[in-house]
Amino acid sequence: MTCEPRVRVLPGSTAVGERVTLGHGSGGRMSADLIREVFLTAFGNDCLNRLDDSARLDPPPGRLAFSTDTFVVDPIFFPGGDIGDLAVNGTVNDLAMSGAVPRWLSAGFIIEEGFPLADLERICASMGRAAGEAGVEIVTGDTKVVGRGGCDRIFINTAGIGVIAAGFDSGPEFIREGDRVVVSGPIGSHGMAVMMARGRMSFTSEIKSDTAALSGLVAELIAAGGNDIRAMRDATRGGVGSVLGEFAAACGRGIILFPDAMPVADEVAAACDLLGIDPLFVANEGRMVFVTAPAAAEAFVAVCRGHRHGAGAAVIGEVVSAYPGRLLRRTPFGSLQLITCPTGELLPRIC
Amino acid sequence: MTCEPRVRVLPGSTAVGERVTLGHGSGGRMSADLIREVFLTAFGNDCLNRLDDSARLDPPPGRLAFSTDTFVVDPIFFPGGDIGDLAVNGTVNDLAMSGAVPRWLSAGFIIEEGFPLADLERICASMGRAAGEAGVEIVTGDTKVVGRGGCDRIFINTAGIGVIAAGFDSGPEFIREGDRVVVSGPIGSHGMAVMMARGRMSFTSEIKSDTAALSGLVAELIAAGGNDIRAMRDATRGGVGSVLGEFAAACGRGIILFPDAMPVADEVAAACDLLGIDPLFVANEGRMVFVTAPAAAEAFVAVCRGHRHGAGAAVIGEVVSAYPGRLLRRTPFGSLQLITCPTGELLPRIC
Repeated sequence: MTCEPRVRVLPGSTAVGERVTLGHGSGGRMSADLIREVFLTAFGNDCLNRLDDSARLDPPPGRLAFSTDTFVVDPIFFPGGDIGDLAVNGTVNDLAMSGAVPRWLSAGFIIEEGFPLADLERICASMGRAAGEAGVEIVTGDTKVVGRGGCDRIFINTAGIGVIAAGFDSGPEFIREGDRVVVSGPIGSHGMAVMMARGRMSFTSEIKSDTAALSGLVAELIAAGGNDIRAMRDATRGGVGSVLGEFAAACGRGIILFPDAMPVADEVAAACDLLGIDPLFVANEGRMVFVTAPAAAEAFVAVCRGHRHGAGAAVIGEVVSAYPGRLLRRTPFGSLQLITCPTGELLPRIC
Repeated sequence: MTCEPRVRVLPGSTAVGERVTLGHGSGGRMSADLIREVFLTAFGNDCLNRLDDSARLDPPPGRLAFSTDTFVVDPIFFPGGDIGDLAVNGTVNDLAMSGAVPRWLSAGFIIEEGFPLADLERICASMGRAAGEAGVEIVTGDTKVVGRGGCDRIFINTAGIGVIAAGFDSGPEFIREGDRVVVSGPIGSHGMAVMMARGRMSFTSEIKSDTAALSGLVAELIAAGGNDIRAMRDATRGGVGSVLGEFAAACGRGIILFPDAMPVADEVAAACDLLGIDPLFVANEGRMVFVTAPAAAEAFVAVCRGHRHGAGAAVIGEVVSAYPGRLLRRTPFGSLQLITCPTGELLPRIC
């Protein structure tokens, strides 16, 4: 084309400038510069580098999982992660929960005019690292820039495709009486880390988000005994409590949590206590809850504990035929307490 | 779960209320109500209705196309369409341009708190209609609600998967000297319709967006002679001019536009003339430009003209070995004029 770059590249600078402008979303030369210098640098691969309208994939025969998630987390940088790794891990985890091996991601950016390029580069580097760790490639993308005030800094959508393990099937409809409920690690860290990072608390803490890709752990669990896994879910918005409430409703059975079995980090428990929040309903981004055949539960816990994203896993409850559709907690005194989910929004823009 | 709906449904109202609230993005019961009453009503299908973390797909063996696009168009309703059909058609067209039959879409919504439910229903109905016309299913989705001022009303991301026709391959690297350039219909309508709808012009017009799914037309073109299609692209942001500039650069040849061959509707030409804009660089959302073997060009034009989204198709130019990487226009006087793409952003938030 006749439009050679006319921007002089200064030492220590780039052709794209220091801030995102409307021109970077024009689909023209400035967009091409942004794509090449920021996105391809951070997470380029043979497929993405072609910059075609569509990525061309060659999946193995069989079923695929397809999922999407949009990330609007505030703040965009928080202890333990940022909107970039969250956007990769979130969709990777949705795919993994279907028993799929995540393979390909799309990334759609909405960026506010004036957003610092250095922050975009940091976010994209984080996406590249997270994709590498999860074994997925970002193969297609899109960038829109909206004027100042048109959005709050940056939003990222990812959609993903995974290859479902042959013969694997799961879902709450497979849950049976006597089954055990396992959580893969201490809960509530992501939600409390984001809440603390907003800086509106009268106290501070060192809580870090648990954001992580669970696909590796899921692959190990399926290899260890996929037939004994009834249902899996990553416990994001709404926390472990919402997932178990949905499982109970969907399988028409009751779920009873064991007394003092739920793993919660001390600082998360302390912060929740101060704020009067039940960690059961606090968001996670690297924790999964799954229901297993009773005899297999402890073996699955051992698999989790052998994985770096499964330290602290525990059996937290059991499935009963009484109390259909209800989630309950057995108190240390042996009585049963009905758990009701919060009706309002605990904390918006958690992911 | 213990959280039965506590909202009383009034006649003529719905359980979700009249405006989108932060609770609708919580992932909890209000989100479930919104999904059921708005999204499933508008575009539900067996796969989406399961509301799993991921859709499970069973594609035929072979290559797939995967693409994504985010829509931030302003205004969200404009003559001829709205952000909903635009979001479906945009990704459908990206897939079709790879020679793929679009099959499955994801939809990711970012909605501003307070957005009218009636507008969301209208947008979703439009998505449902567009998906039906394009023969695709929306199989997975996500909804985020941000506080007032956090985004400008509503943004929609779609990602899509299509099945690539066996044996079909295209791309600018296949373009040869002597090839012809075809456009599928009059250009510039979408961009000018959006510009008019912003209401900042001193004149009015009846220009309607060309938003349409091109997958049906592409299937007919491939059936008529896929081997003679060198490269296809939907001419969205940047218009036909940007696509041809990129084609010229990518194939290392020159592209010369014929004098007076470009189809432009009278009212679009008049509006462009008043504003001093070249319709060649105005966005389209239902127009494609493609390069064909010379002998097949007129037959492809005939195929287009027989399709409801291809009326007004025309051969608009040819590929030459001279002027590598350049786009030129032959004037009615026979001289050649170099076409340079505009460096700035013609009109942000066009799609």
